[in-house]
Amino acid sequence: MTPTLTPGAASTAALVLDLAGTFAFALNGALTAVRAARLDIVGVVTLGMITALGGGILRDILLGALPPATFSDWRYLLVATAGGLIAFALSRQLDRITLSITVFDALGLGLFAVTGAARALDLGAGAGQAVLLGGITAVGGGTLRDVLVRRIPSVLSSELYAVPALLGALVVVVADRLGSTAVAWSLAGAALAFTVRMLGV
Amino acid sequence: MTPTLTPGAASTAALVLDLAGTFAFALNGALTAVRAARLDIVGVVTLGMITALGGGILRDILLGALPPATFSDWRYLLVATAGGLIAFALSRQLDRITLSITVFDALGLGLFAVTGAARALDLGAGAGQAVLLGGITAVGGGTLRDVLVRRIPSVLSSELYAVPALLGALVVVVADRLGSTAVAWSLAGAALAFTVRMLGV
Amino acid sequence: MTPTLTPGAASTAALVLDLAGTFAFALNGALTAVRAARLDIVGVVTLGMITALGGGILRDILLGALPPATFSDWRYLLVATAGGLIAFALSRQLDRITLSITVFDALGLGLFAVTGAARALDLGAGAGQAVLLGGITAVGGGTLRDVLVRRIPSVLSSELYAVPALLGALVVVVADRLGSTAVAWSLAGAALAFTVRMLGV
Repeated sequence: MTPTLTPGAASTAALVLDLAGTFAFALNGALTAVRAARLDIVGVVTLGMITALGGGILRDILLGALPPATFSDWRYLLVATAGGLIAFALSRQLDRITLSITVFDALGLGLFAVTGAARALDLGAGAGQAVLLGGITAVGGGTLRDVLVRRIPSVLSSELYAVPALLGALVVVVADRLGSTAVAWSLAGAALAFTVRMLGV
Repeated sequence: MTPTLTPGAASTAALVLDLAGTFAFALNGALTAVRAARLDIVGVVTLGMITALGGGILRDILLGALPPATFSDWRYLLVATAGGLIAFALSRQLDRITLSITVFDALGLGLFAVTGAARALDLGAGAGQAVLLGGITAVGGGTLRDVLVRRIPSVLSSELYAVPALLGALVVVVADRLGSTAVAWSLAGAALAFTVRMLGV
Repeated sequence: MTPTLTPGAASTAALVLDLAGTFAFALNGALTAVRAARLDIVGVVTLGMITALGGGILRDILLGALPPATFSDWRYLLVATAGGLIAFALSRQLDRITLSITVFDALGLGLFAVTGAARALDLGAGAGQAVLLGGITAVGGGTLRDVLVRRIPSVLSSELYAVPALLGALVVVVADRLGSTAVAWSLAGAALAFTVRMLGV
């Protein structure tokens, strides 16, 4: 693993992580729709998409980077739709649906914390702002999901939801300030956020 | 009916359709406030205005067209306020209030799907983006309405809410790509969305 | 008190009023989290921050002034966090917690009505728009708060929530149109909104 990457490679890696987070949240949102609200296929895919895309859209609105990346890069929409459809198809066979919902949520949380913070830095945000925007990106989609199915959002009801997201974002921002935008830091930040989140479930 | 219109005429027609959609959603939101939440006149008019203006504001935020049209063209605010007040006044005499709520919702959905898509195209969005933004414009106000009165939003609970909106938007976008911005296509798209929505109620 | 102020003094006064409103809403949101939803410390501080910062963020999004002031001036975040922590610490000793929630909400409502309207005028909004944006700034944070803890928002359920906010904003806008941006008018508008709100509780 190289300590630094060329800009092109870094942005490819960032895109892969962002799409992975999008996919994880799409599965999570769709399974939540199946489990918590017993929605039909349109509702399941819609909630998957909102969960997957909500955090990034909120981030881009707050950064003034409009239209949001979701609307200028169709891969996000494709991945989110695919995730929703796959989750709908699998939901009948999935024995451990509750565990899956939790794991996909923590994966999305960790990945979006680091990609959200990195995008904020790219667009010129300061260190503190980038940590905060990473956290908002990570918790935004899940908060929309919970409001739409009428649950108290995890960001309020769970001690370890906003905190691991901010920790994951902090890793990327500190690494950036130390001069490194290596993907290793993004992976470390996402893994940290994921682990802390899972410990708190 | 001419196959093409001058830009001025097209934009006048678009404005009329947009204001008609605003009026329909204002009636719908205000009647929902009377029926579902038993609110007083301020609450009724406020929910009517949020339902009427929410979708267009969300569209303009996502397009980066800020401030939203609602804040730069007072006709939207006037029409929304008038719709809310009229619905409040009529609600005591309206026998078929539940049917009215459904019809006004479907009317607003169809009209906003086509005007939202057209506005996205005007502001330079691609075809796929315009279909999506038309759908978001159409379902946005009703989703805010449902969240505020604590119902599972129609966009999640009904198979035929997002789908007819996307279909209506698709008509306008396909016509545009074929070189026609005639009002007839907007009317056809709105009518298609309205009909599909009413079939699904 | 002088009838007019230098721009620097006026903007310092506006900042002080805005931070005072932020603090009041942070206390209100955090106490609501303790009382209504029995959240832990992370949830309490988070709801305090959302209540405190939500209205201003919504205002800046609608004005296209992105990133929002909250993300470019750290004093807002500090004051909001401090308010949430203080409310959490005090909530065990506070006998009259329900009254406190009401008073802090009315204080934030009045202060944000006038500072929101003034910021809209600063950014070139027309008179009517500024009144409306003052009202939205004032009711925005509390509406987010109520949605997140699953209550019908005050802006819908109470006759005197949007109305006093619009009245407070109107005072500032009329004064501005008459040529005065004196802080006295902001204080008068905030006091009017606060008083009318408290009469309606």
